[in-house]
Amino acid sequence: MSHDRNEDEWSPQGPVTELSDAESWLLLDSSTFGHLGLSVDDRPDIFPINYVCLNRRILFRTASGAKLSTLLHNRFAVFEADDRSETGAWSVVVKGIATVLDSPVEIRDADLAEWPTWVPTAPYVYVKIEPETVRGRRFLRHLRTERA
Amino acid sequence: MSHDRNEDEWSPQGPVTELSDAESWLLLDSSTFGHLGLSVDDRPDIFPINYVCLNRRILFRTASGAKLSTLLHNRFAVFEADDRSETGAWSVVVKGIATVLDSPVEIRDADLAEWPTWVPTAPYVYVKIEPETVRGRRFLRHLRTERA
Repeated sequence: MSHDRNEDEWSPQGPVTELSDAESWLLLDSSTFGHLGLSVDDRPDIFPINYVCLNRRILFRTASGAKLSTLLHNRFAVFEADDRSETGAWSVVVKGIATVLDSPVEIRDADLAEWPTWVPTAPYVYVKIEPETVRGRRFLRHLRTERA
Repeated sequence: MSHDRNEDEWSPQGPVTELSDAESWLLLDSSTFGHLGLSVDDRPDIFPINYVCLNRRILFRTASGAKLSTLLHNRFAVFEADDRSETGAWSVVVKGIATVLDSPVEIRDADLAEWPTWVPTAPYVYVKIEPETVRGRRFLRHLRTERA
């Protein structure tokens, strides 16, 4: 896994601070809601998902449907989580390879994770994103200044 | 433009309500922060962006960098915005074709739009996503019940 820095040095959100891997994972650990990006035939798609971080991997649950069939077609995945406050925002993007968990040990560990209370209503599988790159950024908010 | 319904009838977020186009655009109008999904060689990417809706198109600003070079390489784009509350969440996904604005009239209209106060710090262009499909969903939160 490595940083992913060689892109987009500029942001319309204003001043940007690049975050270390440790900071990025702390932020990912602090949330349970993010965005899964997939692509089939270079047509991108985004799915809002609940997730947990386990050993620096992104885990989420899904049932049969578009997400799962897309994942089985193209395992390249991107995951993004963010949050905003009065003073700014952070965003962490993880790119990697998605696989359905099939090892009993991994499934047991996933069962024990602290999932958000948006509980599943249908049978599901766990999907893991094995990170290849992680990039965390903090955006400071530009405050408008008024003439005195 | 059409609804995009033929996917993922189930969600781990619990009960899902499909929203009309009108409801979806009202929700998109209510926010200025979303997620742009792009893909190059079937490797998806997600960028957090500030946006505005203008005549049922998604508009955002970008400078030279990964977003813009990716867009010029593959114009298929997806845009997602969402928000969460105590009782649930909404998410609207717009799929379409991205183009850099070059008509003076469109650029003037974009200049007049109410952009968020995260002001740009470098020269930028406007990009428009012309929607092909829109899909809005509302997720109700499953409340845990306790034994009396």
